[in-house]
Amino acid sequence: MSDAIWKKLEERIEWLIEQEKFAELQSLLEDVHPADIAFILSRLDRVSQHIVFDLLGSETASDVLVELSDHTQERVLGELDEQRLADLVDMLDSDEAADVLGSVEPEIAEKVLETLPEEQKSDVQQLLTYDEDTAGGIMSTELVSVEESMTVEEVIDEVRSAADRVDDIYAIWVVDSDGVLRGSVTLKNLILAEPNTRVGSLMDSDVRPVVVDMDQEEVVHIMRRYDLVAAPVVDSSGKLLGRITWDDAIDVMNEESEEDLGYISGTGEEEPSARSVFNSSRERIPWLIAGLFGGIISALVMSGFEQSLNHIIVLAFFVPIITAMGGNVGMQSSTIIVRGLATGEITYDDAGQRIAKELGVALLNGAMLGLILTLIIWFWQKELEISLVISFSLLVVILVSSIIGVAAPLMLKKINIDPALAMGPFVTISNDIFGVFIYLSIATVLLVH
Amino acid sequence: MSDAIWKKLEERIEWLIEQEKFAELQSLLEDVHPADIAFILSRLDRVSQHIVFDLLGSETASDVLVELSDHTQERVLGELDEQRLADLVDMLDSDEAADVLGSVEPEIAEKVLETLPEEQKSDVQQLLTYDEDTAGGIMSTELVSVEESMTVEEVIDEVRSAADRVDDIYAIWVVDSDGVLRGSVTLKNLILAEPNTRVGSLMDSDVRPVVVDMDQEEVVHIMRRYDLVAAPVVDSSGKLLGRITWDDAIDVMNEESEEDLGYISGTGEEEPSARSVFNSSRERIPWLIAGLFGGIISALVMSGFEQSLNHIIVLAFFVPIITAMGGNVGMQSSTIIVRGLATGEITYDDAGQRIAKELGVALLNGAMLGLILTLIIWFWQKELEISLVISFSLLVVILVSSIIGVAAPLMLKKINIDPALAMGPFVTISNDIFGVFIYLSIATVLLVH
Repeated sequence: MSDAIWKKLEERIEWLIEQEKFAELQSLLEDVHPADIAFILSRLDRVSQHIVFDLLGSETASDVLVELSDHTQERVLGELDEQRLADLVDMLDSDEAADVLGSVEPEIAEKVLETLPEEQKSDVQQLLTYDEDTAGGIMSTELVSVEESMTVEEVIDEVRSAADRVDDIYAIWVVDSDGVLRGSVTLKNLILAEPNTRVGSLMDSDVRPVVVDMDQEEVVHIMRRYDLVAAPVVDSSGKLLGRITWDDAIDVMNEESEEDLGYISGTGEEEPSARSVFNSSRERIPWLIAGLFGGIISALVMSGFEQSLNHIIVLAFFVPIITAMGGNVGMQSSTIIVRGLATGEITYDDAGQRIAKELGVALLNGAMLGLILTLIIWFWQKELEISLVISFSLLVVILVSSIIGVAAPLMLKKINIDPALAMGPFVTISNDIFGVFIYLSIATVLLVH
Repeated sequence: MSDAIWKKLEERIEWLIEQEKFAELQSLLEDVHPADIAFILSRLDRVSQHIVFDLLGSETASDVLVELSDHTQERVLGELDEQRLADLVDMLDSDEAADVLGSVEPEIAEKVLETLPEEQKSDVQQLLTYDEDTAGGIMSTELVSVEESMTVEEVIDEVRSAADRVDDIYAIWVVDSDGVLRGSVTLKNLILAEPNTRVGSLMDSDVRPVVVDMDQEEVVHIMRRYDLVAAPVVDSSGKLLGRITWDDAIDVMNEESEEDLGYISGTGEEEPSARSVFNSSRERIPWLIAGLFGGIISALVMSGFEQSLNHIIVLAFFVPIITAMGGNVGMQSSTIIVRGLATGEITYDDAGQRIAKELGVALLNGAMLGLILTLIIWFWQKELEISLVISFSLLVVILVSSIIGVAAPLMLKKINIDPALAMGPFVTISNDIFGVFIYLSIATVLLVH
């Protein structure tokens, strides 16, 4: 839909709510795709969200529920009574049900679980035990699995009986009598095969199962590298437990890149749809306080050079250049390292080689920037000595910032903290402090006789 | 594979190259997945890359070629002779062939095209005409399409004859006699249906085709929202031209998030696997020069306040806090807006409301930070007036930075420039300059009598 059509639909819905024409609103919503309703909900205020969601039939409501952003989902779930919640959860796939029940009060989740059919209940309970950032936390238990000894005809019967339960069958998993994963066949292979062929002779045994406690980022990495539209999840003995599909992988990628942006920009877990000033403030203030204290340390450092500054006030003018350049260079180095660590192209063992390369880049860029700066300051202040000293300090600051930029993510990775944190205020703050110190130290030694 | 196994494999390959044991290397590579060979290539030096790639059989080599990062692919392609290139391109899907031919010299591409079978040649030529950031630029022409009037049995025959050409059949597209897309059926539906059913009665007509010139980001947006494992691509008259699959969507997401990171960090199109100091320097220097000139403007602004600074040198100590806080706050606001614009949760029409919200957050956070800063400076410098004035300036700088942070991405979006640019040096540089100016102006008016 184009922006204009969206706007019109949104305005129509808001108008119907205002006029309390709920029957009309309900029939309007019947023609809107659940994913679109979810999107519209994210843009409505709390009261309207409640009104719209209440008007939806159970099936649509359950489809809408899983499409909502965490923020909006939380708000909608907060307003549901237990009966309605139970109705909706009953219609969800096991992984979605576990996600929803994981975000409501434990007592309510417990009560809703009791209302589910026995098999679904035990699946969801099992899924709730896995860490949400692991393969187990994102897999679903809805899949088609067959035994090696079955014929194509029998497998097709199995597909028929599973058709309702499993919406998208990307592959049929083949297991042995203990439930250990042996291979997979695609529907295409089934269609092309003779009905009495044994599936064991047809299957592709080069499946790349992921273990249930594998980190979700690594799972996505494997799915991307080997182009797996669905990845089977197994326990440590190889028993098939569930599957992760391409749309789960996309959700994880999105989650990870939002997490990175949250680190870099200091917005934490804030979502764009959030409207509360108070909540946004709470997500952002920790990063700002960290920056404030970093700035106070810079101020203390500068006060230590009060005499030099009093003597040559021009030095103060170039503090913003020093901090900006130190920050930029550090950010450039750390970003390349963080990305390389994420893809595996850079490992901790490459540290020495990487620092050497980044120092090379810093030296080249620092020399170019220093040259430009020398000429500008010389032309402006007519003092060759000052311009040379400031530019030389800039070069040293750039070299040091670059080393910090490389070292910080590698060290975080080593101690098992997400290296993406290094792209955020961490490197910028420390580079500000080191930059000011290095700059004023060099200037004092060389200029203040 | 674990890091340790990778490292061992990598060392073994390097050792075999060094010892020139090429036969042994060749047989070792036969057991490695093409995607893994691509990964290893990205970590080898130029000469070794060439040696390894030369040892690969055509089929493996073509699989490896499409898995390489742009940077490594470019280097490998640069070393291939025309005959080998033609052999490899012949084995690729149309979209991959177009990508590869799009990255070699036009004369070479022309010669290779001539060697392809007629149908493939015209497909690839057609694909080469589309802008690479559009649906046409990422779609492939390998798909299964059938006419509405065909029976399930006939469709299965069609699948059989297309099986070799189309690796992953996610859906079968149903078209009318003019080739206009009418609907789709899944293989699951085919398997479950009676052989003599007409496919027109079986198909899902709620397909959501994307138009061939649609921006790739919007395509991915649609595929994600409606959970489409494959999206059909049509021309303006609705005629089916190709399809985009989930793995294309993942590649686009990855490309876009790398582009954003390149903007934010000022690393441009640099890839982590790049080893050349000179290339990395070239990608990064433009952003640094922009920052340098921003810093020089800040220096000019500060020189305009030389008297105030000479009078109260303490003011200089707090310049790093002002620039750091202005930068952080601007980055926070712009990141939220850029993300919201990307998902559609924020539109240009929301500008007023968004600025109001961001001002609210800025006011709340600015007040808290100002209070902390007042107490610290007061305690440290024992001057209540100075501490109040600096903190008040900080508050004003935070408010202004936040407005710039909201306005910049919205304005860029309005003039059709990627708003993600606003998260980069653009906002940080302008916030440094405005911050220093506002801070010293307020301090001069209030403190320097």
